Amino acid sequence: MANIAILGFGNIGSGTLEVLRASAQGVARRAGEPVEVKYICDVRDFSSHPDAKLFVKDIAPVLADESVSVVVETIGGTRFAYPMVKAALEAGKSVATSNKELVATHGAELLAIAREKKCAFLFEASVGGGMPLIKPVSECLAVNRIEKLYGIVNGTTNFMLTKMSGGMDFDESLREAQRLGYAETIDPSADVDGIDAQRKTAILASMLTGRHIHPEDVPTRGIRDVSVRDIELAESLGCTVRLIAWVDNDDAFACGVEPCLVDNANRIAGVEDVYNGVLIQCDMLEDVMFYGRGAGKLPTASSVVSDVADAVRYADSMNDTLFWDEAPAKGSPYEDARVHEYYVRTAQGAESVPGVTRVLGTQDGETAVLAQCTAAEVSACGARFWMKLVR
Amino acid sequence: MANIAILGFGNIGSGTLEVLRASAQGVARRAGEPVEVKYICDVRDFSSHPDAKLFVKDIAPVLADESVSVVVETIGGTRFAYPMVKAALEAGKSVATSNKELVATHGAELLAIAREKKCAFLFEASVGGGMPLIKPVSECLAVNRIEKLYGIVNGTTNFMLTKMSGGMDFDESLREAQRLGYAETIDPSADVDGIDAQRKTAILASMLTGRHIHPEDVPTRGIRDVSVRDIELAESLGCTVRLIAWVDNDDAFACGVEPCLVDNANRIAGVEDVYNGVLIQCDMLEDVMFYGRGAGKLPTASSVVSDVADAVRYADSMNDTLFWDEAPAKGSPYEDARVHEYYVRTAQGAESVPGVTRVLGTQDGETAVLAQCTAAEVSACGARFWMKLVR
Repeated sequence: MANIAILGFGNIGSGTLEVLRASAQGVARRAGEPVEVKYICDVRDFSSHPDAKLFVKDIAPVLADESVSVVVETIGGTRFAYPMVKAALEAGKSVATSNKELVATHGAELLAIAREKKCAFLFEASVGGGMPLIKPVSECLAVNRIEKLYGIVNGTTNFMLTKMSGGMDFDESLREAQRLGYAETIDPSADVDGIDAQRKTAILASMLTGRHIHPEDVPTRGIRDVSVRDIELAESLGCTVRLIAWVDNDDAFACGVEPCLVDNANRIAGVEDVYNGVLIQCDMLEDVMFYGRGAGKLPTASSVVSDVADAVRYADSMNDTLFWDEAPAKGSPYEDARVHEYYVRTAQGAESVPGVTRVLGTQDGETAVLAQCTAAEVSACGARFWMKLVR
Repeated sequence: MANIAILGFGNIGSGTLEVLRASAQGVARRAGEPVEVKYICDVRDFSSHPDAKLFVKDIAPVLADESVSVVVETIGGTRFAYPMVKAALEAGKSVATSNKELVATHGAELLAIAREKKCAFLFEASVGGGMPLIKPVSECLAVNRIEKLYGIVNGTTNFMLTKMSGGMDFDESLREAQRLGYAETIDPSADVDGIDAQRKTAILASMLTGRHIHPEDVPTRGIRDVSVRDIELAESLGCTVRLIAWVDNDDAFACGVEPCLVDNANRIAGVEDVYNGVLIQCDMLEDVMFYGRGAGKLPTASSVVSDVADAVRYADSMNDTLFWDEAPAKGSPYEDARVHEYYVRTAQGAESVPGVTRVLGTQDGETAVLAQCTAAEVSACGARFWMKLVR
């Protein structure tokens, strides 16, 4: 029997306990032995919880207990999660986490410790929630070169953009997302400003390149400046506005998060509401797409439990393929130097935009155009807002 | 170093050699050791091939060589493949195959031998070519109950239906598919009559239920009777005609392969050309969809090589989750007893069809209607052709 500990008993942590119990038989078959939760570590008071006897306030008893082979981390953030996960790995315990900030910030270091201690550091639930992505991409990379990866990795903004194409404005769609619990009420910027997608993109880019890509080096713009007028013009061009996370690892490496005009013929344009969808283009396998619920308690917990089963069974071999090295230094954003087609909205007239191919119209003193230029050129031309076209 | 043998040096067999060599480093990382092709078994003459020294005409030297741990089977059919694969497994060698007929016909027996001999019987490439499906579905089943699975598993008929919605008739689209090498020139019935999809559905149904579902018990109709008029009427209803493989494992078990009217709002309707797409509905993970190239030399070979790496590394544990038992007997088709909405085309007038809700029109003496009834009712009413509606 494998004993595990859950750190953080919030939404995903309690979901993990629920899924482990509901699927005990299948999990045992996959893990090779029954999996039992021995500790739940949370600073809050759970003395009246039916599993009260499992709760501890501190990670110390977990670390001291040699019978615990896997630790689930669902605390979030890095302040508490990072030292706890590091200590668990250093004690030779495998870790399964849903914490994208932790992986994006400290992934290389934690993977190196896991490898040294012959245990696993797994994070399927950190990107795409219930959508299987990290493991298939990692396995795919052993056989293929992934030349390009792009898609939708933030369900909240995708929900908002779906609502906006139905006519809601940004503020209304944000209120609706907050009402449904998709967006944070106090500060929704992690979603709206693309920070969540930036972290996920850093993780995927690190996988594709084999070196740690720091999230702050992923050029990122959120959806705050998308107007209903932009969405209408996009539709007139046969496109849908989507917040696209992308990694190009072909001739040159570049990555980013930005609102884009996605051609409706592209399958990514059809990913709606809170769903996520990611397309990978490989040299051997060609195009493959994954699609699923990007968030939610049980879908995400189900991914955590998959990792737990793998960690129990395969501990020391999982990170042979799922691995990247530390990069020398951070602070140099991976800008895209190529020319793309852009939708540009400017208050300075069409002539202010480089490489204009078509003027779409003027409204409220702002002119919308299509232009062929680089990211550097469009961001330097004084435009109010711009979006790359994805065919 | 792991030595392997390839049985059958056709399209997929030679692709497997190509992918193994092109991705040697990644494969070694994933397999835990370098993987080397020691034998290629093919009855044809390859004496002038650059790898001539690897060729043998018979499986005997492969079986006798204890250094061979994995055998790749890409012969196809069951006449030669079945005894060879059985002998390899009985000799304790893991097998990775792309052969859907073999798995659909003898899967339960071969899985049982693999388990007994502590080796692996893997077949990712047998369904969906390069689209990852067998492994994620098998892993998913450890944590989730998959209540429903459906989608497109035959690229050739999907290519033809895509062409037909562009205005080609059945014969033209078949000739085009044959010209491009998607359909067999002499006898295209494996694709056109749904036999290929039937085998794949039997494999998926066996995974979902844990007992062997014989392909002949999967009620199957191909696309031979789909007319351009059917496709036009489907379009007027906001639907696309697709050959749908489906498994229902919710309250009751039923499965089938049949042309359906798929609502354009359903992501499966948008799967075009030779692509495959399969949607699974799970209790925890909710909806997940996989999409990719369903066939082709390198995509399929890439899936075979993934299985080889897993077999080298994890031999005896892979079939703990990927497994099903022999079923007691074959010969009872899994008919769907529920009422569905059907598109029905009849020469006997609307009144001959049970549960008609709407008459769509009459042309050339045939009346097309929508009706609410069971599969048994619609097939007994003397209609020329019918398709279930999938929302």
